This record gives sequence, C-alpha cells and structure tokens, in this order.
Amino acid sequence: MKLMEEKILREGQILPGDILKVGSFLNQNIDIDFLGDMANEFARLFAHEGVTKVLTIEASGIAIATAVGMKLGASVLFAKKHRTSNVDGQPYSAPVHSFTHNEDYEVLVSRDYLSSTDRVLIVDDFLANGQAVNGLFSLCEQAGAQVVGVGIAIEKCFSGAGDKLRAQGVHLESLAMIESMSEDNIVFRREDNSR
Amino acid sequence: MKLMEEKILREGQILPGDILKVGSFLNQNIDIDFLGDMANEFARLFAHEGVTKVLTIEASGIAIATAVGMKLGASVLFAKKHRTSNVDGQPYSAPVHSFTHNEDYEVLVSRDYLSSTDRVLIVDDFLANGQAVNGLFSLCEQAGAQVVGVGIAIEKCFSGAGDKLRAQGVHLESLAMIESMSEDNIVFRREDNSR
Repeated sequence: MKLMEEKILREGQILPGDILKVGSFLNQNIDIDFLGDMANEFARLFAHEGVTKVLTIEASGIAIATAVGMKLGASVLFAKKHRTSNVDGQPYSAPVHSFTHNEDYEVLVSRDYLSSTDRVLIVDDFLANGQAVNGLFSLCEQAGAQVVGVGIAIEKCFSGAGDKLRAQGVHLESLAMIESMSEDNIVFRREDNSR
Repeated sequence: MKLMEEKILREGQILPGDILKVGSFLNQNIDIDFLGDMANEFARLFAHEGVTKVLTIEASGIAIATAVGMKLGASVLFAKKHRTSNVDGQPYSAPVHSFTHNEDYEVLVSRDYLSSTDRVLIVDDFLANGQAVNGLFSLCEQAGAQVVGVGIAIEKCFSGAGDKLRAQGVHLESLAMIESMSEDNIVFRREDNSR
C-alpha cells in the first residue's frame, strides 16, 4: 500500500533497537482518514475469506481491528495481556515474549468469545518476530477456530516471521513491508521481489 | 439509549464488587453493529461541538473512540497507562486510581498529539468514580486543549462522578445510566428524573 509507505517516510521516527515509532498516525494518535483507507484495503484483500471475527491484541491493534470489523461487518475480539476481573476463570491463553519491551506475558480470551464456527482474521499494527501473532494463532487453535488470514499494517521483513508464515501457506497481507531500516533510511520490499 | 439498556439486561453479568461484565459486546468481544449504533448516537449527541479529537484511555475505550472518530471525522488519541518506548521523554501525565483493579497508574500522552487548538471529546466505556475521566481532563488542561464533551457507554450513577461533572457544566452524555444494581437486578435512571 503506497499510502502506508509514504506515511511512514513522512511521519515515522526510527528509534534505537529497530523501533519504528508511528504514534503520530497509527498507534497512539490515529489519523482517522488514513485508518479508513487502511481498513478499506484490508477489507478488499480479505473480502473473499468469509471472516466472522477480527482478532487482535490490546492495545494498539484495537483501532485497526475495529475499523476493519466495521468495513467487513465482522465482530471484533481483542486478546488481553493481563488477567482482570473481566476475564473468566479458564480463558484460552498462550505465552508471548515481547522483544520490543523485553517482557513475557500471556494473551487471553474468554472461551465464550471464540468458537469452532469462527473464521478469524488476525490483525495487528506490527509483525516482526511473530510472537504476538503466534500467540493469537494458538488461541484460535485451542478454540478450534479457523484462521483465514493475517492483516498487518507494518511488517519488519528482516525479522523473518512474515516469510515463515507465508511459507506455511498463511494468507498474510502487510500494508508496508520493511526490508531493512537504519537510523536515516528505510528500504521497502517491492511486490516484484517479494516472492 | 434504549438499545444499550436492553443489551445490558440481555448480555451483562453482574460480578461481586459492583462490576458489570459486558465483555460479550463492549469491551472484549465487540458486537460491530451495536458499536456502529453507539457511535451514531454519540455523533448525533456531539454533532455541534466541533470535535477535533476523540480522547480515550487504553484499552477498552479504544474501539468506542475509533468508531466515534470515524463517524465524526475526528482523529483519535488514546492515553497510555504505561511508559513505553513509544511515549516520548516528557509526556503529559496524570495519576489515576482504579477502584476496579485497586491499582494506581499514570495516564500519558505525548505532547505532540494534543494542543491548545484541539476541541476534545473524551470517550470511555464506563464512568463510575470518574478517576480515568479526571485524568484525561488533566491531560487536556496541561495541553491547553478544550474538553467539549464526555461520552460514556455505561454510567454507574451511584458512584456519583457523573452528577458531579454535570454540576460543573460538563456536557456529559451516557448511553445507559445505572441508578442501582444488585446481584439480580439493574435499575436504570430515566431521562425524566435525571435532572
């Protein structure tokens, strides 16, 4: 998605540790017109997958998942990172390690909200090492739900998880694919050299 | 909003400690059609406030804020509860105490994302003791931004914060107003005895 690449080049900030800060439009402050464009693109890419549920992880995936859910007319479910009084006694859960924040946590969803009849589109802002997405896959597997696609705003190709998912036959669509990044340069993967 | 009251009566679960669990449609699993109805109602109620920014707090306010932002064409900003690499060195911050989870935390937004030209609609899923909303008010005050309204999905009137805000002249709109609740009963405040 050309728009996403342009937005990253214009507004993204590269921080130490391969962190790309996109808080100005994607994951703290949300440019609502741009979010609408993203959601339209995801809705187009996954239009034929019969999605019944858009699954993401709190917090920064929720806005994207909500916009996509509204476009697809599918309900939205977000996995929590902490047990609270709102999560039932025996939720589906999976361990996740965050390389960005160097912490381990669990992703959790109540058993009531995911079932074997669901066709799930997993959505998130970033895909790097794939830990969060793998955790969400695990929740779906536990519920017997079918993952019909994965939609990512920004993929860090150099971390490898995206290509691993593609090799496994997952229908993965990333709106921007970063092949490499350094303090002052971002190289995007082009469609024609992506496979 | 009659629809919200019906939804609460049909799907809400009352847990010990005056906790109303609405995870099945509002804050973990999101009924997307219902979210659209809610957003339309908020957009109608605040149509004349010239909202430039919809402000909420992670995580459960984000879906509502996103839907409202899409209807109003206003950007969405969510305050974070933890400092991460995505929050700049000197963000606006305010202390908040959560009675539900019995914990203290800070709400934070980067200075770049809130300014004195913003007309802010604060949105959240619940209003009880008003701690979170007061924290968001404080962030706006620090930024010199004007709060033009507060939109709440479910107000627990018996906690008192809503009436205090109304007495201060805040344009507060709650889609459902719970006057009292017990293990097996919920009493809603009716418009005609609300002021």
